[in-house]
Amino acid sequence: MNPSAAVLTEPFFGDHQGGILTGTQRSTVVGAFDVATDERKDLAGLLQRWTALGAQLTAGETVPIPTEELSGDTPSSTDSLEAYGLGPSRLTLTIGFGKSLFEDAEGRDRFKLAHHRPPALIDLPAFSGDALVADDSDGDVFLQACADDPQVAFHAIRSLARVAPDVAILRWTQSGFSGGNQAGTPRNLMGFKDGTMDSNLHPPDDLDATLWAGTEGPGWMRGGSYLVYRRIRIDLQRWDQETVSEQEQVIGRDKLNGAPLGTAEEFSALDLDAQDAEGNLAIPLLAHVRLAAPATNHGAVIVRRAFSYDNGTIPQGASRAALDKSAVYDAGLLFLAYQKDPRKAFVPIFSKLADTDSLNKFSLHTASGLFAVPPGARGPGDWVGRLLVD
Amino acid sequence: MNPSAAVLTEPFFGDHQGGILTGTQRSTVVGAFDVATDERKDLAGLLQRWTALGAQLTAGETVPIPTEELSGDTPSSTDSLEAYGLGPSRLTLTIGFGKSLFEDAEGRDRFKLAHHRPPALIDLPAFSGDALVADDSDGDVFLQACADDPQVAFHAIRSLARVAPDVAILRWTQSGFSGGNQAGTPRNLMGFKDGTMDSNLHPPDDLDATLWAGTEGPGWMRGGSYLVYRRIRIDLQRWDQETVSEQEQVIGRDKLNGAPLGTAEEFSALDLDAQDAEGNLAIPLLAHVRLAAPATNHGAVIVRRAFSYDNGTIPQGASRAALDKSAVYDAGLLFLAYQKDPRKAFVPIFSKLADTDSLNKFSLHTASGLFAVPPGARGPGDWVGRLLVD
Repeated sequence: MNPSAAVLTEPFFGDHQGGILTGTQRSTVVGAFDVATDERKDLAGLLQRWTALGAQLTAGETVPIPTEELSGDTPSSTDSLEAYGLGPSRLTLTIGFGKSLFEDAEGRDRFKLAHHRPPALIDLPAFSGDALVADDSDGDVFLQACADDPQVAFHAIRSLARVAPDVAILRWTQSGFSGGNQAGTPRNLMGFKDGTMDSNLHPPDDLDATLWAGTEGPGWMRGGSYLVYRRIRIDLQRWDQETVSEQEQVIGRDKLNGAPLGTAEEFSALDLDAQDAEGNLAIPLLAHVRLAAPATNHGAVIVRRAFSYDNGTIPQGASRAALDKSAVYDAGLLFLAYQKDPRKAFVPIFSKLADTDSLNKFSLHTASGLFAVPPGARGPGDWVGRLLVD
Repeated sequence: MNPSAAVLTEPFFGDHQGGILTGTQRSTVVGAFDVATDERKDLAGLLQRWTALGAQLTAGETVPIPTEELSGDTPSSTDSLEAYGLGPSRLTLTIGFGKSLFEDAEGRDRFKLAHHRPPALIDLPAFSGDALVADDSDGDVFLQACADDPQVAFHAIRSLARVAPDVAILRWTQSGFSGGNQAGTPRNLMGFKDGTMDSNLHPPDDLDATLWAGTEGPGWMRGGSYLVYRRIRIDLQRWDQETVSEQEQVIGRDKLNGAPLGTAEEFSALDLDAQDAEGNLAIPLLAHVRLAAPATNHGAVIVRRAFSYDNGTIPQGASRAALDKSAVYDAGLLFLAYQKDPRKAFVPIFSKLADTDSLNKFSLHTASGLFAVPPGARGPGDWVGRLLVD
């Protein structure tokens, strides 16, 4: 890595949390926790600690972890040190709340917060083809760490997990990466440019209409956003058996330059009526870009941060596909999409995609979550979630 | 990443394969394959293709994948493109052979190679505490890809897997990373400097005596080496409950500066007799560095490449430890150790460690392999393994 890149910082405090519109870093670790207490003051303490530690870590400080204050029988420990000397590396930390924080699986309103639950923070419906692993999904509170160094992102999640081990019980984590493309839009493991539209790299013009929660919901969420997380395994071996032309018909873009089919350049507008020389639609009816386009979704827009993941392999003989002699890559996309209201964006868009997208033949959703991401802490003394929990 | 770093290349051809003494890159993907043919010419064809493609990929070329030649019913495909534009990123590819290539689990000598099996290519013995997952271990042929970009390393393994899908059946892969420390020895997830001794960063003086196979074994291995692969989960939550002082007693080094206990500097020689102020041994009897030191192992030495891994978490309630309320990190060390003869290095060293090392309380070996890594291809026209298979 460029030595100068390690010292770059992203702001922690602000109207919005970092890690939403921030330029995609090279690594991420996301994770969720279940809250083991029914005391709102413990939840507030957790968020205060996370805010304070998040501000320190994003500034690149190596910090003591004050575990002893919350758990008298835990030895006092200091920073776990694996990120010592690595610099801030553009670390961002983003905190979200799951629906179960407001009403748990038994319907209990543990923190007397149920009446503050935003209507947009729903249980995601079951989608066609879902193969979700419950142990890798959902959770009361969510963390997203992004950094240009994988060890810095790992250290951030681990450090936040340590400050209140009796309050926030680790539920799952998942790491991801983005190829360090120097020029232009990075590529995903399908080999296509990923982020040309609907991404933090090229966000929509009217963020208040598409990304940030406003007066339509509770005041504590104003300036926040809603994150949909999906871990999407791509059957890369099956994908690799398709010709490039077949892949382009699935996605609806040119593989090399990213141009929507029927156009010449990556950032050309989609022409959903364009025809090829034979009079067929240039972008097939069930191509991914057509089905996901705002024009076919009443203008609905999401703002994605695109990462790939590689969890190794699923053993030989355990796969669902024709390639069952071979181990199957457990690799693909970490889909992290921010939006103003998932009921008007991810849910209707993906309901349609799940039923019809040509890409479904190659994809399997194995983990999921929806989290309300409150606005940022305004400065030292403020903390993420204060307007809800305080 | 530094733009200039992406264009850096490591040599593919040479007396030794790359990826052994090469300075540690920031990412790795390792994996193994089972060979589905009994025809030696197909095995030779595989190694010829891997050599040719390895040379192209390490040079940063985007290459067509000639699958059609080996499998008539597979569509012709081109490069999967996820690494397009990322540059060579110091990619190295390292090829090894498992014992099962010479004699399979049923005792068959499929390729008439059994009489060429090096005596050093043994079945590793069962060690105390092993918790090996067979589906993530062993294999007929092995690949190690290392690069400064995770997507370049992933692309390399995937590309080699594609050139002969009917011959080399993917068995497992595992990815890893190294924190991009700018100055000095990188740290592992335990927070300690890792690679001060016994590593490619500071290799032993006499490589012919410690690393490279010589006249003691078959001619085809001369200039090669033997790789022991172990995936070692570290119980990081338990580790984090120890004080720094307790951790230092386990490892035998100062956590911050890496100095052997009882000395002042990272590269000070171990002083196994040094005493602290109370007259106790500065490096405890069962500390990791004492038990692993050449001085306590008849001079035996290994050359490690240190990577960390992060496979997410093991679900809440599924752990073996007291922390069973919490999910447990499936993260730790990818141990990749090259040596002249594992019977005189890894096996005796680790047999002792597995029985007595203070670190065992925190570590669990979950995958394993031993591979004979032949010498390098000397140049275009030569291929890795030619002296064995041709």
